[in-house]
Parts: sequence; C-alpha cells; structure tokens
Amino acid sequence: MISVNELALEIFDNLANYSEDFNVAYHELDNGAKIVDCGVSVPGGYAAGRAFTEICMGGLGEVNFRMGQIKHVPMPFIEVSTDYPAISCLGAQKAGWTVKAGNYFAMGSGPARALALKPKHTYEVIGYEDESDDAVIALESDHLPNGEVMEKIAKDCGIDVENLCAVVAPTASLVGSIQVCGRCVETAVYKLNELGFDTRKITAAMGTAPIPPVKADATKAMGTTNDATIYHGQISLTMKAPDIVDFLEKIPSNKSKGYGKPFYEIFKEANFDFYQIDTSLFSPAEVTINELTEGKVYHVGEVNPDVTLKSFGYL
Amino acid sequence: MISVNELALEIFDNLANYSEDFNVAYHELDNGAKIVDCGVSVPGGYAAGRAFTEICMGGLGEVNFRMGQIKHVPMPFIEVSTDYPAISCLGAQKAGWTVKAGNYFAMGSGPARALALKPKHTYEVIGYEDESDDAVIALESDHLPNGEVMEKIAKDCGIDVENLCAVVAPTASLVGSIQVCGRCVETAVYKLNELGFDTRKITAAMGTAPIPPVKADATKAMGTTNDATIYHGQISLTMKAPDIVDFLEKIPSNKSKGYGKPFYEIFKEANFDFYQIDTSLFSPAEVTINELTEGKVYHVGEVNPDVTLKSFGYL
Amino acid sequence: MISVNELALEIFDNLANYSEDFNVAYHELDNGAKIVDCGVSVPGGYAAGRAFTEICMGGLGEVNFRMGQIKHVPMPFIEVSTDYPAISCLGAQKAGWTVKAGNYFAMGSGPARALALKPKHTYEVIGYEDESDDAVIALESDHLPNGEVMEKIAKDCGIDVENLCAVVAPTASLVGSIQVCGRCVETAVYKLNELGFDTRKITAAMGTAPIPPVKADATKAMGTTNDATIYHGQISLTMKAPDIVDFLEKIPSNKSKGYGKPFYEIFKEANFDFYQIDTSLFSPAEVTINELTEGKVYHVGEVNPDVTLKSFGYL
Repeated sequence: MISVNELALEIFDNLANYSEDFNVAYHELDNGAKIVDCGVSVPGGYAAGRAFTEICMGGLGEVNFRMGQIKHVPMPFIEVSTDYPAISCLGAQKAGWTVKAGNYFAMGSGPARALALKPKHTYEVIGYEDESDDAVIALESDHLPNGEVMEKIAKDCGIDVENLCAVVAPTASLVGSIQVCGRCVETAVYKLNELGFDTRKITAAMGTAPIPPVKADATKAMGTTNDATIYHGQISLTMKAPDIVDFLEKIPSNKSKGYGKPFYEIFKEANFDFYQIDTSLFSPAEVTINELTEGKVYHVGEVNPDVTLKSFGYL
Repeated sequence: MISVNELALEIFDNLANYSEDFNVAYHELDNGAKIVDCGVSVPGGYAAGRAFTEICMGGLGEVNFRMGQIKHVPMPFIEVSTDYPAISCLGAQKAGWTVKAGNYFAMGSGPARALALKPKHTYEVIGYEDESDDAVIALESDHLPNGEVMEKIAKDCGIDVENLCAVVAPTASLVGSIQVCGRCVETAVYKLNELGFDTRKITAAMGTAPIPPVKADATKAMGTTNDATIYHGQISLTMKAPDIVDFLEKIPSNKSKGYGKPFYEIFKEANFDFYQIDTSLFSPAEVTINELTEGKVYHVGEVNPDVTLKSFGYL
Repeated sequence: MISVNELALEIFDNLANYSEDFNVAYHELDNGAKIVDCGVSVPGGYAAGRAFTEICMGGLGEVNFRMGQIKHVPMPFIEVSTDYPAISCLGAQKAGWTVKAGNYFAMGSGPARALALKPKHTYEVIGYEDESDDAVIALESDHLPNGEVMEKIAKDCGIDVENLCAVVAPTASLVGSIQVCGRCVETAVYKLNELGFDTRKITAAMGTAPIPPVKADATKAMGTTNDATIYHGQISLTMKAPDIVDFLEKIPSNKSKGYGKPFYEIFKEANFDFYQIDTSLFSPAEVTINELTEGKVYHVGEVNPDVTLKSFGYL
C-alpha cells in the first residue's frame, strides 16, 4: 500500500538537505521535530514552491512551471498532475486540519492528515489510511510552530515527535502563492466529493492555474490565491464513471452565487466572515472530463480573464 | 555506440520497481520474462504514459505534459523532444513489428525492434543496429502476452527470454492515448523517410500534440489517437540538409487525399480496410524546419482545430 | 555559502560522462583540462542546450523546453527560472569575460567568472564571490580552446588547470541558440543592474523566449539570438523593492533607440561596430513584476511578433 508520508518524506529530506539551494531554512527543534521554513523568515522560491506542493500531494503529484499569458499579461503558471486524485488531493493536499495549540494557529494539510485522519469522514469516503512511523505536515502560517505545537501534531498522528516534519509558508509569500494555486486539481476533486460523487473513480487528473502575485497581507493574499483557481483554473479529469453526467453542471465556479467578483471583495462584503460565503464558489473555473466506460468527453465552465487580472492587480 | 535497449531498460526497471506509484502492475512469467501492464487490468496514468513513451523512444526522447487549449477547450498536451530523431523514432518508436503468436496479436514497437531488425530495411536506411543482451518491447494490445509470445519475441531478438521486458497498453487507455500522440515527432520523421529523405540528417526534433480522450473501443481510439497528430501535431525539426526543399510540400497531412474528416470516418468509409487508406495521411499537421547549412527556415501545413475537436467529441 | 562552480560541476560531469547520449564530445587535454564540445564538431541538441544553460547559471537555474507559437508559426520555446537571480544571472550567466589567448577568442560566461571576478565591479555590487578548487566556464566560440587557453583561464581563476572544465558552443549552433535565448531572464536582471537597481532585492525570476533558428554564420546568429529576447522575451520578477517604480519605464527594449528592426539590420547600419549600438536595446521585450512589500504588480513592454518572425526568417 502506498504511504503518502513515506513518499513526502523523501521530498522533505531533499528540501532539508539542500536548504540553501532552495532558499529555505532548516530547523531541528530540541524535541527532534524537523521544520523547513519556506517563507516565514526566508524568501523561498519556485523550487521550494514545487517541493512544498508535491509534499502537500503526498508525493503522488507532479508539479511544473511555465510562463503563460492572461490576455496581454505574461505571468507564471503552475502545472499539476496526479495519477491518484482521491488519495493525493483529498487524502493529503486538502487543507482539512486546523492546527491550534496555545497561541499557534495554522491551516494544516499534507500527508500527516492521513495518519491523524483529519477529518475522519474523508478517509472513510476514499477508503485510504496511511501507516507510517513518519509524518509530514504542511502549515500555511506566518509563524513557525514551536516544540509544543509539533508535540501535539505528532500525538494526533500517533508518531514520535522526532519523526514529525513540517514545511511552513505564509499565505502571502511566493511559496504560499504557489502551493495554493497548486490546489487547482484538488479543488475539482474536492468539489466532486462535496457533491457526493465517488472520487475514487477519477483515475488521473491534470490542471493549470496562474501563480497569483503575492499580496502584502494574508487576507488579500487569500483573495488572489483563491481567484487563481476560481477564475482561471483549468482541469482535465480522466474517470470511469458514467454517473458523472449528474454532477457536471455543479462543478464549475460560475454556477455559484458570489461568482463574478474578486474573492477579496466577496469576503469584504461578508464582513470577512468566512461562513457567510457560498462554499460552492471554491471550484475550478473550467473542467474537461474524459469518461472511459462510454468513451465520452464533457466540458463545463470557462475561465474569466478579466476578474483574474482585476484580482491580481493588472486591471 | 548507444544501446536503445540498455537505455530503455533503466526506464522499464523504474516502472517495475515502483509499479504501485505508477498505477501499473508488474508480472514476472514462469520463464522469467518481465511484463509491466500499463492499462490492460490497471488504470495506468500520466507518469506511466511518459515512461511508456520514453521506452518506445529507446531512452533517447524526453516527454513532458502540460495543459493546453484548442479553441475554447482546455486539455492536456504532450511535449516530445529528441536529439536522435532517426534512431529514436525509426529505430525504436515506430510501430514496425506486428507481433503474432498463437491467438495473440499486438502492434509492437520500441527498442526490441533494433535487435530483431523489424523491418530490416529500416535499420539499413538509418545505419543503426543495437547490440544488447536485454530487450524492451512496447505492445499496443488489450491483452498481456503469455510465456510463448514472449519466447517468440525473445527468439526474434536473439536474447534469452528472461532478459525480455514488455510494456503493454490497449489503444483505448490513458497510456494508449499518451503513447500514440507521443509519436507526433516520429510521424514527421517517418513521413520524411517514406519520401526518400535521409533522416540521419535531422539532428534534433521537438513536437507537441493534444492527448486525445480515451474512447470506448480500440477502433474509435485508433481514430482519435491518429487525429491528434494528423490534425493537431506541431513539429519542429533541426537538420543539415539543403535538399529538404524537395520534400517540403509532401510532409504535412493536409496534402493527403482523405484529409479533412476525423480518421474514424475515413476508416469507416473504407469499410475498416486499412489498406484502402491513403498512407500519406499519417503525417503531422504542421512542421517548421531549421536547415543549418544555409541557415534557413521553412513552415508547412497547419493545425485543424475544428476536425480535432470533432474527432475528440467536443464539437 | 553556495558555490556556483561546485553546482555547475555536477552538471558538467553528467555531460562528460554521458557525452554520447547528449550528442556532444568530451575531451581531456594533456594538461588535464576538461572540455565538452557542444557544437563545434558535434551536433549537440536540446538536452545539451539545457545542460549548457544550467551550467551558465551556476546550477541555480532550471531550464525546460516546450513548443509554443508566434502568430501562426509553431516553434520551440525555452523556459528559465531561478531563485537566485543576482548570483545566477550576474554572478555566473552574464557574458562578462572576453577570453583572449594567442589567436583564441571567445565570449566567456558561467561560474568561472565568480572566481576570476570578471568583471570585479559586478561581484562587489551583488556581494558574492565563489570559493572553489574547481571552475566551470562556458565559451561561445566556433573553436575549442587549446591547453594554453585553458591554462590562462585557470590562472585567472586561481585554480589548477586540471580542475578547469569548459563547455563550448558556437553562436550558430543549436546549443548556441538555446544558451543565448536562455539568457532572457539575465537580460532583465542585467538591465536593472545597469540602471542602478540593487538586483539582490529580486528573490525569484522566471522567463520564456522562443529558441531562435540557427543561422548560417555567427553574425547573423548574433542577430536572431538577441532578437529572441529583445522582441519576444517575457519575464516575471518577484522582488522586495518598492523603489522599482523608478526603474519601470526603462526596463523593456521598446524604449531604446534602435527598437523596431531585427538586430542584424541595426548592426549592419552601424557598420557592424558594436559600440555604435544603443546598449539599452539589450533588454527583454516584456516584464511583469510582483513587488512584495506593497503587494503590487507592474507590467511594462510588449512582445513584437512581427519583428521576431522577420528576424527568424518566417516573414
């Protein structure tokens, strides 16, 4: 059985061993916990952003970059693919673990979730649990976790704290921008899961999204990083599931209530209360599907270059 | 001298050793022959499709993926490059070996051909033969070969059967779609060879084509996979050959008789009799050439987005 | 501290050890100096072009290829990224060393410069010097250097000649075309440095440019290779530098005097006297910038498809 933690550990070790080349910083805490800072006190970069994203996907995704263009504006894009969409996206990459310990708060994602079963329901649905003595967690935060935080995470994972590894990047950092738009495929898989579709039927997935420019604070960065997928994420899914026809219309973001404005504006109008936002907005802009049983193709949604450029600050 | 089988063996071993990560299945037969199933009883995926294609090219090609777009439809594209066009495309990748043994039938390609010299004429023309104790063959088939089939292939290669490795994928599978559109560069080199051009003068080549959606049966899949290159393959060739001017007009697909309809329709009109089809149709849509001796460039053909989308099912 | 020479040495060793796969030739001179010919007496290729470019960048850059399109013409493009823009571009890749010894002449670039401090001013400005017993130099020349030339380079680097490695490619060769357009990001960083901007504030950079077709002689090749960046280089810079606003207008090539004609024509009108050409022309066509302190984005310049295609010979 595939262990997303063991696969991610190889990527983490590479980051830690070549931290200077990656423009990141490696720390070993007194209790033995290992941390790679990818953007809190260091600049990070593209290579670190790829490693962070591949760690999030439990080593079951491939990440590349290329220059692309939205209307007249050139900018970097991320390319993501996986042959294990349910396990890599829902079992690892999904930001499903709110890490709280003392004053520390971070959105947790990555393979460690598959040990701590955060949330348990997800792992029941996809029929996957990891068994591993090591855990790798990805933390979206402006601060590095201390020993106590790492102790708590290790305990939840059922492992020794010296076997716990964390990568950390603020939302408003280059690695933060990369790892969030690196969730473009996950957003599609997540949405289908939310709609009640059995995502284990998706056998392969590929997607692209613009890498959003880094904003000056976390709230604004939350806006642009979400907009990259909501308004310009393009995903291709391969699946054996004729029943997908019943879900098609609900997949893309343009069917949700708030659609049409940059996320930050929607968030602001909701008085920055996350729970007032229509969650169906967290969807990719455009999806093509190849259903293998019947050999059919489907195409839903569309990119919205204007809102994307407006969100990014180019319009 | 370069051994395409030794280079491909490294890729095969990687597939076999990490079969679960690749979503493929490794089998060792009683007679020691090694098989990686990339789509018969397993889903396969993008990573397996890349490995399969790189094996077909005898380890002398590089394969990557990215999301692209045809008109308004986003879809995955393959990128292929090689610095040994004649050897990798004609000496290995070309589907030049019809493997028949008992009831088993498969289109054979890959470096094993360079040992069995299938067909011999090709190897005389490109001035290449491999010497290797190992052989790697790629089989396009809905079924895995049994021990007898592998014995026959090994015998034709002049090697022991325990040193024979095979990768297998049906035409109608994700790996099948990838490995056929992965022949986009080969199609250009093959066409030039058919026209009597000395392809050893081509020093480097790069190409891209959409990865066609998988269809429900092999005949329909044969249509879409061919259409990917015929109607949307874009190839760039670097060569030292001023005589290329005499071949230019005959390279692209749009000069052939059947051009303008999805391949499946042409095939159907020919009562599914392959030999009634104008073989000049098996050409890339569009080719640019950089001739180094005179420092010139040439551009022939054009992509046909409408027929491509129609073939794929999007129009 | 990062050693650009040690990082580049790994790439050089790979080229040397697998020279046949790369379509290049490895030579060890009597005095122990090591040379990889990437295009003087060998064809070279895409893989060698990537290795050459990554060596130029001191192992701190990543290089990839993809097919792209300018107007209706498909052609290969290069993708370059780095998380150490100042060190990799100015401290290594910049062609800042005119190598002359006896009759030998070559434009020298790559990490060896960071030992020889060519030119010294550059290293003071970026605050970097390498310490290494090994040196790797990249030479743009139609000829391989002999033992005396290598002795002189080694002496300037302060190392033993048997620890000196050189990669060599003519301007008018495939590797030459690749490695020059591979300077697209460097051109942006160089221009900012020339304008007095502190390039250490640039934390990450990505860029793309078409790979220009190889021309029949060095002078014409100099034209097309420069035009690839001047008229079609698209760069994205990430930086912490609110003062960038003072430099924006002067970055792109379209603000320079000679802009609008292929470089070869400008050069010809200047009677092939390099010193009569407005140096501000050596700039990328289009740049987007993400300034992190204020979370802003900027976009200057634009690509010029017509002049690019004219330069390349497609119009």
